[in-house]
Amino acid sequence: MATKKMILDLDTGIDDALALALAVEDPRVDLIGIISSYGNTLIETAGQNSLDLLHLLQADDVPVYLGENHSSTTQSFETMPISMAIHGDNGIGNIELEPATKPIETQSGVQFLIEAAHEYGYDLIYLPTGPLTNLAAAIRQDPTVAELIGQTTLMGGALTVPGNVTPFTEANINQDPEAADYVFTHQKNITMVGLDVTLRTLLTKEHTKAWRELGTLAGTQYADMMDYYIDAYDTLDIDHRGAALHDPLAVAVSIDPNYVTTIDLNLRVTYDRESGDYGRTIGDKQRLLDSTTTKVAVNVDNERFVRDFQDFMLDILKN
Amino acid sequence: MATKKMILDLDTGIDDALALALAVEDPRVDLIGIISSYGNTLIETAGQNSLDLLHLLQADDVPVYLGENHSSTTQSFETMPISMAIHGDNGIGNIELEPATKPIETQSGVQFLIEAAHEYGYDLIYLPTGPLTNLAAAIRQDPTVAELIGQTTLMGGALTVPGNVTPFTEANINQDPEAADYVFTHQKNITMVGLDVTLRTLLTKEHTKAWRELGTLAGTQYADMMDYYIDAYDTLDIDHRGAALHDPLAVAVSIDPNYVTTIDLNLRVTYDRESGDYGRTIGDKQRLLDSTTTKVAVNVDNERFVRDFQDFMLDILKN
Repeated sequence: MATKKMILDLDTGIDDALALALAVEDPRVDLIGIISSYGNTLIETAGQNSLDLLHLLQADDVPVYLGENHSSTTQSFETMPISMAIHGDNGIGNIELEPATKPIETQSGVQFLIEAAHEYGYDLIYLPTGPLTNLAAAIRQDPTVAELIGQTTLMGGALTVPGNVTPFTEANINQDPEAADYVFTHQKNITMVGLDVTLRTLLTKEHTKAWRELGTLAGTQYADMMDYYIDAYDTLDIDHRGAALHDPLAVAVSIDPNYVTTIDLNLRVTYDRESGDYGRTIGDKQRLLDSTTTKVAVNVDNERFVRDFQDFMLDILKN
Repeated sequence: MATKKMILDLDTGIDDALALALAVEDPRVDLIGIISSYGNTLIETAGQNSLDLLHLLQADDVPVYLGENHSSTTQSFETMPISMAIHGDNGIGNIELEPATKPIETQSGVQFLIEAAHEYGYDLIYLPTGPLTNLAAAIRQDPTVAELIGQTTLMGGALTVPGNVTPFTEANINQDPEAADYVFTHQKNITMVGLDVTLRTLLTKEHTKAWRELGTLAGTQYADMMDYYIDAYDTLDIDHRGAALHDPLAVAVSIDPNYVTTIDLNLRVTYDRESGDYGRTIGDKQRLLDSTTTKVAVNVDNERFVRDFQDFMLDILKN
């Protein structure tokens, strides 16, 4: 089996930082680039965070690109207060990382994605953990992208559980429901890893204590970040038992689908602001009898995933 | 394998009439009684319709009981105009059936259910195709019912697709969301057969033409009823391709679970009228890590089911 190529599309973000670590270090995938998105923080901040995290993990060779810096229906973006409460003002729990010496690439992230789709096709895994603005833009510029990308595994949405922004809306989808609807009605071979499963994968300070005890800079800084996130989950009454491993679960599933149970369902995203269910990921009544393009993760072997995640992180952070 | 005992809880209703026919004639179950509910029509009308349909199918020996005649939070019930548009003013497409000679039982339907739960336990299938008011009342009167009934397979709800009353709410759940929430948080061994799957099982006038061509009274009257329902689906823009086999699919699944794919999920029903998602069946965030009491059907082998259903109906209606 050829090693799959992976592109992460991150709004980095604390759980994005965990996803980045998994993708950098997993020998089963070759991380060929990171596209930045607005979302948990501003796009420039997200891009710099990704560069600095790659530097911390001694993976400076991975290029970082900037994608679209606001949603497909707005002219600008400001970070939501709730995002800052969860991820810190700088997106990574107000931790100061050593700045990378390498700059962000000058090619646009959307153009990079289009070229990679043509170059790698079936062997490409595209993994967005934020809004779906960049993929929608890529398909609009080059409709063949919808067929070319081998596998799109996204963190976002909530089908069988309530949302985390409203009872209907998950935060990533909420950033750009129009783009998400465009992706779900155009892109082939999507796996949605949403709140349905990610809310069941909880990391605790017991886990981060072990990272810290490695005595490495990476171990300490990742533990500091994650503790900020666990504290936010507690303070904001999201979950007092631990913090959800949203983005790293998506990376793990893209490599080993057996972590989750999926159902086949064509989705829509509602984006009528008058409808009362703005930003809802829901089955498409018009395509219930059609062949399906999307798998939705609805159950997860959370014990195996959290155990494997912890083993993997201890290995990554030990140097 | 002992033959399972079945209790239908029907708000009869055209598709209820189809469910009744399957349950009466399937040799794999023994239909020990029908409880009536308000819903598609008034409770007295539903009860009389069930009696008259049993008479048409030469099954006068099955007793019919009356359950609760309005929801758990109201003092009375009036049939909704949309229900009359779909099922006719009399619940069975304005067809006139020969009246049964036998009366409705004097014992209450809720009491009958409680006694049957104690008598048959694991071997009892309880199958409500309308509101969940009667089951909630039974559990409140005798909490052991929640553990005793072997299997509750209900037609109702919409988890992965929009509702048919609002974008969130399916019609049966909408009648009494409080009772439905009480059932989903108390009753063990529930299978929910909702719009997720029933909207994919469509019957057409090609099928009912074959019923009519049997030349029997039952064939003609069932075809007249079903054609009224198919016409309503067309006129009301619900589906122009055919009419959904909601209630009979639930009966079929209760006997042969392989017709559907299910997921394990603990559900809640929202019933805050201010919340904007009144009557929504949705995963219970508080019980995501708990063991599950409910299976939700999310996919259906609709070709096999519609084919088997038609074969079965042709056999039932031939006498």
